[in-house]
Amino acid sequence: MADEMIDGLRFEQRHGKERVRVARVWRNEDGRHTIVEWSVGISLLSDCVAAYVFDDNSDIVATDTMKNTVFVKAKECSEQISVEDFAIGLAKHFTSVYQQVTTAIIKIVEKPWERVYIDGQPHEHGFKLGSEKHTTEVILKKSGALQVTSGVEGLAVLKTTKSGFEGFIRDKYTALPDTRERILATEVTASWRYPFESLSSVPPKPLYFTERYLDVKKVLVDTFFGPPKEGVYSPSVQSTLYHMAKAVLGRFPDILSIRLKMPNLHFLPVNLSSKDNPAIVKFNDDVYLPTDEPHGSIEASLGRFRIKDVEAAAQVG
Amino acid sequence: MADEMIDGLRFEQRHGKERVRVARVWRNEDGRHTIVEWSVGISLLSDCVAAYVFDDNSDIVATDTMKNTVFVKAKECSEQISVEDFAIGLAKHFTSVYQQVTTAIIKIVEKPWERVYIDGQPHEHGFKLGSEKHTTEVILKKSGALQVTSGVEGLAVLKTTKSGFEGFIRDKYTALPDTRERILATEVTASWRYPFESLSSVPPKPLYFTERYLDVKKVLVDTFFGPPKEGVYSPSVQSTLYHMAKAVLGRFPDILSIRLKMPNLHFLPVNLSSKDNPAIVKFNDDVYLPTDEPHGSIEASLGRFRIKDVEAAAQVG
Amino acid sequence: MADEMIDGLRFEQRHGKERVRVARVWRNEDGRHTIVEWSVGISLLSDCVAAYVFDDNSDIVATDTMKNTVFVKAKECSEQISVEDFAIGLAKHFTSVYQQVTTAIIKIVEKPWERVYIDGQPHEHGFKLGSEKHTTEVILKKSGALQVTSGVEGLAVLKTTKSGFEGFIRDKYTALPDTRERILATEVTASWRYPFESLSSVPPKPLYFTERYLDVKKVLVDTFFGPPKEGVYSPSVQSTLYHMAKAVLGRFPDILSIRLKMPNLHFLPVNLSSKDNPAIVKFNDDVYLPTDEPHGSIEASLGRFRIKDVEAAAQVG
Amino acid sequence: MADEMIDGLRFEQRHGKERVRVARVWRNEDGRHTIVEWSVGISLLSDCVAAYVFDDNSDIVATDTMKNTVFVKAKECSEQISVEDFAIGLAKHFTSVYQQVTTAIIKIVEKPWERVYIDGQPHEHGFKLGSEKHTTEVILKKSGALQVTSGVEGLAVLKTTKSGFEGFIRDKYTALPDTRERILATEVTASWRYPFESLSSVPPKPLYFTERYLDVKKVLVDTFFGPPKEGVYSPSVQSTLYHMAKAVLGRFPDILSIRLKMPNLHFLPVNLSSKDNPAIVKFNDDVYLPTDEPHGSIEASLGRFRIKDVEAAAQVG
Repeated sequence: MADEMIDGLRFEQRHGKERVRVARVWRNEDGRHTIVEWSVGISLLSDCVAAYVFDDNSDIVATDTMKNTVFVKAKECSEQISVEDFAIGLAKHFTSVYQQVTTAIIKIVEKPWERVYIDGQPHEHGFKLGSEKHTTEVILKKSGALQVTSGVEGLAVLKTTKSGFEGFIRDKYTALPDTRERILATEVTASWRYPFESLSSVPPKPLYFTERYLDVKKVLVDTFFGPPKEGVYSPSVQSTLYHMAKAVLGRFPDILSIRLKMPNLHFLPVNLSSKDNPAIVKFNDDVYLPTDEPHGSIEASLGRFRIKDVEAAAQVG
Repeated sequence: MADEMIDGLRFEQRHGKERVRVARVWRNEDGRHTIVEWSVGISLLSDCVAAYVFDDNSDIVATDTMKNTVFVKAKECSEQISVEDFAIGLAKHFTSVYQQVTTAIIKIVEKPWERVYIDGQPHEHGFKLGSEKHTTEVILKKSGALQVTSGVEGLAVLKTTKSGFEGFIRDKYTALPDTRERILATEVTASWRYPFESLSSVPPKPLYFTERYLDVKKVLVDTFFGPPKEGVYSPSVQSTLYHMAKAVLGRFPDILSIRLKMPNLHFLPVNLSSKDNPAIVKFNDDVYLPTDEPHGSIEASLGRFRIKDVEAAAQVG
Repeated sequence: MADEMIDGLRFEQRHGKERVRVARVWRNEDGRHTIVEWSVGISLLSDCVAAYVFDDNSDIVATDTMKNTVFVKAKECSEQISVEDFAIGLAKHFTSVYQQVTTAIIKIVEKPWERVYIDGQPHEHGFKLGSEKHTTEVILKKSGALQVTSGVEGLAVLKTTKSGFEGFIRDKYTALPDTRERILATEVTASWRYPFESLSSVPPKPLYFTERYLDVKKVLVDTFFGPPKEGVYSPSVQSTLYHMAKAVLGRFPDILSIRLKMPNLHFLPVNLSSKDNPAIVKFNDDVYLPTDEPHGSIEASLGRFRIKDVEAAAQVG
Repeated sequence: MADEMIDGLRFEQRHGKERVRVARVWRNEDGRHTIVEWSVGISLLSDCVAAYVFDDNSDIVATDTMKNTVFVKAKECSEQISVEDFAIGLAKHFTSVYQQVTTAIIKIVEKPWERVYIDGQPHEHGFKLGSEKHTTEVILKKSGALQVTSGVEGLAVLKTTKSGFEGFIRDKYTALPDTRERILATEVTASWRYPFESLSSVPPKPLYFTERYLDVKKVLVDTFFGPPKEGVYSPSVQSTLYHMAKAVLGRFPDILSIRLKMPNLHFLPVNLSSKDNPAIVKFNDDVYLPTDEPHGSIEASLGRFRIKDVEAAAQVG
């Protein structure tokens, strides 16, 4: 948010509309349908301080109007469009139509409707909900400065072996034993930034972002698990996260940076005993208590330096 | 619950443990691992009124003991086992070990961990969370009388056409127009009852119930959507539900009855207008507002008459 | 649900509308406002099998019409009305207006908007959300047979002492020690049945049910905690539950029966140790780990025998 | 997060433990008990890149150790302590004990257990769950630089009148009419920053932060509603939010800044019509459809300039 001064106080504000749900159906000539379902969040930075301070709403874009705009823009999509391109279109609308709006922030979550297969054949108009969700955040300034971020939410993965954790700091509050054999489970939230810094630099190729989303997800999953036969040993969530991030940047030159949140969703070995029965259950890599309260939280980002950043940094120095 | 009389009042009670989470891993000799993750609910009907009325806990199975038993029984599963067979085993334990327990009710929800494929190869120890969940409810009485119910939860399906609703009752509170073209979306909750009435009648075949679960799910999905090319017209959720139920009973003689809950999750056609602009958005089978508040609720069960039921009914008459 | 026969199969069905949200405001002449906010669920048993079997919707009350009816009926309430009376009115409408409808089941949850006090003065039109929720379920048959149930949801209570659990069954899976000192925490779900068996027997007194709701809640809470100074010892959730139920029946002759669900939300004593440090934390009635996964579940109902029931029972015998 | 360079890439990371639940009971000599229940989130910035890059965990504080520390620190609280002071104590521990830790971020949510009153008398050991929650976030650097933020979550308030919205931007996508009469409902999330910049500047007064939390909440609520008789007209959520923020800063010199998030939770006037019945329901400030999907989102912060900030700003210029 941009700062302003009011009565000697710093003031920042934004307003928008959350949870605007919209679905768009396209019907191809050959009879095949496609559907997307989005939950859209709009947040506008705009020159409308008078509404806060002087009860004057004349610079306010009503949030109801924002909601209507989502439907209008969905209607205008005559061809299937990626969630990122839709977000960019919305941002462009708000920053260009309203002189008061200095920045538009559009966040969208796509519901994972996947085409159904009946006995191996794709269904013309049938869809089933999958698991993890495709997300995007687009920030566009009136100046034209653009940020496009894509992501995935709820990508739950688990491996039953080839994971350990040892050699960490031991002190008087440490009770966790070292191990080279544990279950590793997490629900990955990833977001990656594209290098496009203006509307004109966004690739015109239809569904460019949709394809890249699938590509990135595959690299994340493949790196987490390793080869089908042997897998790959994970010495920590930290290490696995780092290699996933590095693999994405290594594979896709059009990705500037990636952030990964990988909670450690514990599967605790079950060892049960009582005074009378010292071995109610004795663990042997077989019975676990899964829990997510509490859970570890590991989060990191890895990114390239852009020429521009380096230059800017040099100037400050 | 069984009724009892206390001080001239009717009294029924049960106690148990909910949300007991357990995971079980099996490691085959060829290196392939399998995992199941269950959330177990146990409810016991038992002769323990003294705890309620006379502060005497001597007939109470502590819920903490129930939880431990889940882990013990998971440990004892040396081979992969269906969620139904596990529930049956637990029920058998509680009704046979404790003289006070007259009935055990075991409900389990299985997390949909699915084996990961890397470039088409199944991973030895890698799993990813899928969508809908396998459920079961087993009721076992001390007498040996058994009920086994299996189900699916969260099976979200949608078709973009071949659905309508017309010819319903119109009165002064009716605003919904007739239509032969709408989106049909629902989240199916199904539960089906097996005919096994005692422990000895349960099929000894390993993973019998797991296979049947997949079979039933396929029939439900196939019937909902119809053939891949043409689909099938749905004149109402009611009709579609009925045909799904009938298809399951028609295909599987070992299923006694099936209950389906199919909320109508509306995708409302978007038509927007204002005084100044009578056509902000005009709907043309393209832009929808998805909503689940409120939603329609359609629920039905279809079942066979068992010889036994018919006989019992005859005797009452 | 009423059974029917179709193609030699038993068939039962119902349909309705869930999550119909409505708010009603009343403005008194003296300037004081009142608001209620309800989430209404409607379920109709009706003669509409043709919709399921013959694709004929002519006996179907559209769920959209049900939703509209909620708004119409709210509009018609010119005076403040209890949630129970509103449910009864809806049920009466559906069973009397539609010949097809044989039974209406209306469930409503009321949001706990409570009048705000500013410096001790009640605000004319200001409200704040409280905690637990008032619920009701009304079942009305075309014959006029009525059931009215009221309840409370989410009544979370905790006492830090005067609770124990000892003398329960000990076997080889028991690890829980006996105790006379623990935290007792639960989230009470209660529902109580009124004796009114027809519309004409419902008390005409406005807000009769609203007052009784507050009365019952007070008795439940007072009995759970005991006197402010000494409290009352709870030898088990079972015992406390029983005394709460008994107190309600003892106090209110117009309550026929009451059902209580009281999960045991554990506050586990924290004792932490490691090989190197046998006493990282040593518990002394001070530090607890609260958890609701898993939790105990204790559930019971206590009720009077009605003359009618006794007579009916006698006849069967 | 602090940036680092790895293989020519920028790298930032943090790790911690989320959802660590702990309850602490204090028993006064006069028999009165007090309880707090906290859900603690810990996030550490630390020098442990080797774990990510070289599979070397020797600089990692295990998240299990963090969890244990929460219990140890709760145990050490011999007197009742505010949630802020507890968070500060944790942050101090992590930054002082571990040389690798450069910053500790502690977030805590307190469950609103409130003392029960029985017939007007406070109960010695009885508690009931209230509504909104007290939150805090403490950030402490190894250098000693401190930030203390407190907040409230889930403060749901509603007024049935004295609210309008008019004079906003109208364009071809605008359908919302001007109004001077509507329901205003929101669920306030507030967070306010204290001016304490080092451990030594934190007030030693016990429960200082707890009292201030109650004070701030009262000012927020009072300003939202206005006087009990007349209330105060709200020309927009924006205006109401601004006055709430200003009132807090005006009253409490020890609050540096405040941020408010106030979603506009719409109560839509119900007007229903059909082709045949143009007035199924006609709205007259009486019947509303409450909805939170979608909802408006209004968010702003108001803060003082600190001497230090002003000086720092002057130097940069």
